[in-house]
Amino acid sequence: MFAVAITILVFNLLPIVDKTKDSLTAAALANQWPAYFAYAVSFLTIGIMWLNHHTMLSAVSRVNRTVLVLNLLLLMGVVAIPFPTALIAAHLNDSTAGKVATVTYGLVMIAIGFGYGAMWIYLAAHQKELGARRRVRTPRLSTIRFTAGNAGYIGGTIIAVFAPVAALIIFGLLAVYYLFQHLPDPSAGDDSAPGD
Amino acid sequence: MFAVAITILVFNLLPIVDKTKDSLTAAALANQWPAYFAYAVSFLTIGIMWLNHHTMLSAVSRVNRTVLVLNLLLLMGVVAIPFPTALIAAHLNDSTAGKVATVTYGLVMIAIGFGYGAMWIYLAAHQKELGARRRVRTPRLSTIRFTAGNAGYIGGTIIAVFAPVAALIIFGLLAVYYLFQHLPDPSAGDDSAPGD
Amino acid sequence: MFAVAITILVFNLLPIVDKTKDSLTAAALANQWPAYFAYAVSFLTIGIMWLNHHTMLSAVSRVNRTVLVLNLLLLMGVVAIPFPTALIAAHLNDSTAGKVATVTYGLVMIAIGFGYGAMWIYLAAHQKELGARRRVRTPRLSTIRFTAGNAGYIGGTIIAVFAPVAALIIFGLLAVYYLFQHLPDPSAGDDSAPGD
Amino acid sequence: MFAVAITILVFNLLPIVDKTKDSLTAAALANQWPAYFAYAVSFLTIGIMWLNHHTMLSAVSRVNRTVLVLNLLLLMGVVAIPFPTALIAAHLNDSTAGKVATVTYGLVMIAIGFGYGAMWIYLAAHQKELGARRRVRTPRLSTIRFTAGNAGYIGGTIIAVFAPVAALIIFGLLAVYYLFQHLPDPSAGDDSAPGD
Repeated sequence: MFAVAITILVFNLLPIVDKTKDSLTAAALANQWPAYFAYAVSFLTIGIMWLNHHTMLSAVSRVNRTVLVLNLLLLMGVVAIPFPTALIAAHLNDSTAGKVATVTYGLVMIAIGFGYGAMWIYLAAHQKELGARRRVRTPRLSTIRFTAGNAGYIGGTIIAVFAPVAALIIFGLLAVYYLFQHLPDPSAGDDSAPGD
Repeated sequence: MFAVAITILVFNLLPIVDKTKDSLTAAALANQWPAYFAYAVSFLTIGIMWLNHHTMLSAVSRVNRTVLVLNLLLLMGVVAIPFPTALIAAHLNDSTAGKVATVTYGLVMIAIGFGYGAMWIYLAAHQKELGARRRVRTPRLSTIRFTAGNAGYIGGTIIAVFAPVAALIIFGLLAVYYLFQHLPDPSAGDDSAPGD
Repeated sequence: MFAVAITILVFNLLPIVDKTKDSLTAAALANQWPAYFAYAVSFLTIGIMWLNHHTMLSAVSRVNRTVLVLNLLLLMGVVAIPFPTALIAAHLNDSTAGKVATVTYGLVMIAIGFGYGAMWIYLAAHQKELGARRRVRTPRLSTIRFTAGNAGYIGGTIIAVFAPVAALIIFGLLAVYYLFQHLPDPSAGDDSAPGD
Repeated sequence: MFAVAITILVFNLLPIVDKTKDSLTAAALANQWPAYFAYAVSFLTIGIMWLNHHTMLSAVSRVNRTVLVLNLLLLMGVVAIPFPTALIAAHLNDSTAGKVATVTYGLVMIAIGFGYGAMWIYLAAHQKELGARRRVRTPRLSTIRFTAGNAGYIGGTIIAVFAPVAALIIFGLLAVYYLFQHLPDPSAGDDSAPGD
């Protein structure tokens, strides 16, 4: 599902073909920078969510009904990401509409963040029942990470009310930060990479 | 295929980008609630179908030609779900059109329900031939479950003729009910979760 | 790729949402029968191609560069199927356009048929090199099957010049025929079903 | 992700359905040759990238954070390919627009080429750390291949400024060349083929 969701982001770029139908010039393409920018931010964000999802679920050796339900709710948010991405691509340059689009983007991210937090707290609280392969990181630490991540998205969403472009830059920096700043993952040694 | 079908549901949200092209306000986005509602109901419904499909087919250790054909017919219905979902997203607010859309949705669900029923009855009747890994639940019980589920969808479809919003709420509640109310699955202990 | 291609067929149904935007009635939906018909025929056809592809490639234990290239050309045809399907959905009711659409559909099927034929002849001729797990059926038999199948598609394409609806029925019957009429597959006993 | 990206290329063909809505004749379909041409070139190109990606990552037995990040950047380019493909399909026949479209296509290819080059150089430099299964080809040879490949794309992009059709032919020939001209891959003996 992550693989499909991340690939569907290209539908964020395809409307540019129609928009530049009458005059396809280098300037007209460059003028569509919000679409490329939103594509890159969402691509990195879903990519990180994919890695975190894999790390999170590979910590346990079995899943129960509750995990499957939490997972489904989490993925309902992830799969929706191309929608606020498309809103930003269409409206980042407009004054009011750009703000509405970026705030919507931030709210979807916050909802997904809460989904990850709920999943992690549940996994940490039911380690024995789920046959944890390694010691699931303590709720305290996961809470700190969850709080820090969501604080960033909440802050970005508030900024989006005033400065949507600045907010999108913050969302992009959050993605880059989490891409590099990651707790060591004992299972990282497996030989499969996303997309392989 | 379930992974792709469930992700394609985001195309139910993307037309909102066009609809709010001239005026993207918080009110305009909120006004599109039928699209979000239909997205959530269909997402949970396909999610449950996915789990049930996995449970059903993991009960046997091999499949024959008939199972493959039944499976293909079943998936033909599941893959079509984004279509009635999009009808509801576009028309739930309209008086006549909303009823047509919701009835169509219900009819697709009933057809899929019959597909699951046929598959289950066949699997239960050919346990030895298909090398059942565990005792496939008796046809009697599967019949009861099938009847109960489809009775809900048939009832919802009849209600849709008069009150489409109420019918969609019923379809959503059916999904939530089956999400939690599920016969124990001995194979639930495997370490893969949908979307991982 | 088969899983994605078969799921993308739902995009054959989504234009109906736009076409019935102003008046969504049961009659307007029923009027779109070419779209449902084309969806069902293409779904079954891709489903059979998927099974045949699996059977064909599971006959050998390794692949070489030529097999990968032949496979890529074959899949280039399969992935394109939603295009002539959409042409039929849009035009089956029109006199001239319906013929052009159905002939195009037939030509794509014939091209894919030649692709399967080429792959099969190559696999049969290089059994030792590719470490055939079981004896690949003789070129003679595969030639007969390939000729019979493609003769059906060639005949259907000729008929499409005069009677597109009849041609689409023939394409559908060819799919149903191959769905049931299938040489025994020793590997059919594995426990994975398409879409699982 | 490669499987989804390559299948999404059919969306390059679907706009033809709309373009020929009023008059679907054989001539009107033939007139859309840039779309088929661009489809074939991009299909072969993504297919080769898929094979190379598999070969490259199967050379090591584990991946670290840097490989995952490089991989994500690489895939961000691959997933975007349907966008310049659609630009070419829409504009190859137009004088100025055709040049802009083909140059854009070339620039995306060059960016992806640099991504592959960076990944390969990193893998070659960290063979021990990543538990190389076989000796990763020397940086010198990979540099030559990377330079040759990208030189082709850079040359094609320069030609695209004057003759877009000639440039697209060059991009197609580059794909065909790499399809057959490939360093021996010790892991080619595994029994899975793309799309199976």
